[in-house]
Amino acid sequence: MLTLHAYWRSTTSYRVRAALELKGIAYRTRPVDLVAGAQHSPDYLDINPSAGVPALVLGDGTVLTQSLAILDWLEETHPAPPLLPENPLMRARVRAAAQVIALDVHPVNNLRVVSRLRSEHGLDADAALAWMRHWMAEGFRVYDALLPAHDGAFSFGDAPDLADLCLVAQLYNAHRWGVDLAAFPRLVRIEAAALRLPAFEAARPEAQPDAIC
Amino acid sequence: MLTLHAYWRSTTSYRVRAALELKGIAYRTRPVDLVAGAQHSPDYLDINPSAGVPALVLGDGTVLTQSLAILDWLEETHPAPPLLPENPLMRARVRAAAQVIALDVHPVNNLRVVSRLRSEHGLDADAALAWMRHWMAEGFRVYDALLPAHDGAFSFGDAPDLADLCLVAQLYNAHRWGVDLAAFPRLVRIEAAALRLPAFEAARPEAQPDAIC
Repeated sequence: MLTLHAYWRSTTSYRVRAALELKGIAYRTRPVDLVAGAQHSPDYLDINPSAGVPALVLGDGTVLTQSLAILDWLEETHPAPPLLPENPLMRARVRAAAQVIALDVHPVNNLRVVSRLRSEHGLDADAALAWMRHWMAEGFRVYDALLPAHDGAFSFGDAPDLADLCLVAQLYNAHRWGVDLAAFPRLVRIEAAALRLPAFEAARPEAQPDAIC
Repeated sequence: MLTLHAYWRSTTSYRVRAALELKGIAYRTRPVDLVAGAQHSPDYLDINPSAGVPALVLGDGTVLTQSLAILDWLEETHPAPPLLPENPLMRARVRAAAQVIALDVHPVNNLRVVSRLRSEHGLDADAALAWMRHWMAEGFRVYDALLPAHDGAFSFGDAPDLADLCLVAQLYNAHRWGVDLAAFPRLVRIEAAALRLPAFEAARPEAQPDAIC
């Protein structure tokens, strides 16, 4: 069975959990307490030298890191239901939207990055909050601009795809940090549609074994 | 013909140029002067609402954004020579290494991010330099740790792949900002091997029409 090393509030962990659930792949969760610093333990660094989550360990002990690489591996080895359309051009558009979240927002707001801003560069809690909100709002603006005009429930159609996984996980983070989402009604509707699905219900942070709610 | 909107020093532009050159795909370059703020002009925002480079415009006017999505599209539509191995597990490993650079290093050091640290959060030039060097050194450490033990000239074999594209472009940035690479001899050897190839010779920043050397 697959083992997912993850943290309940990590949006990259959330993305991968949602994909596993959507594809009906059995896995067990091994929590990594990022707030307690468990990602820096020697045992965990042997699994993932980047000290990040998630890491997916296969039945034979093979370790996969980086959430987007894990998602591509899941798509290639368990193609149904698909997270990407078949047409290369449409795949590129879904990927680009996913990457607005996964590259332009998440890395800049990652725990280790914000922690360093505070510890090394003097940002106080308010400044760190403003920093995170800025990049989220900017990312949501661009994501919204990349969406096609259509009536589907999700970003690019009637079923959740790679872009939706990234978006919904990032919106969890946006709620957590009080981002004003009034300018993004379409994104909020997509989130609501996702959270009505059993896969997202199972994958959401509050449903994880290490959740502190 | 393809049109690549790019900036000579942009490492994400460099990645895509190198892929186009390796695959022998004809394209023309349309420079976007990031230092002058050309990415914020209304005309460019119509092409790419994220105000970033690169953007690849196809012959029919279709726009592709996000360098990793562009690279996947190039791989899917022009598979030879390949940027990824065929085996899904090996693909995941190459992608993970590429993403250490593309997600954990580049976004955090991106021009707009560092500019905001300076304009809004009081970092001076020395602090900004230390910030960039920190994330590059950390990323190179992790990248090095993810490489397999083998004798190939490149990261995962005898030919450059997606991970090498990201690495070589990031090493250009590392030289620019004076990162100490003494701890990473293998990465420096990979870079030297790449720069002996005509594709990288043509793709490197100094060879671009907007280069100021």
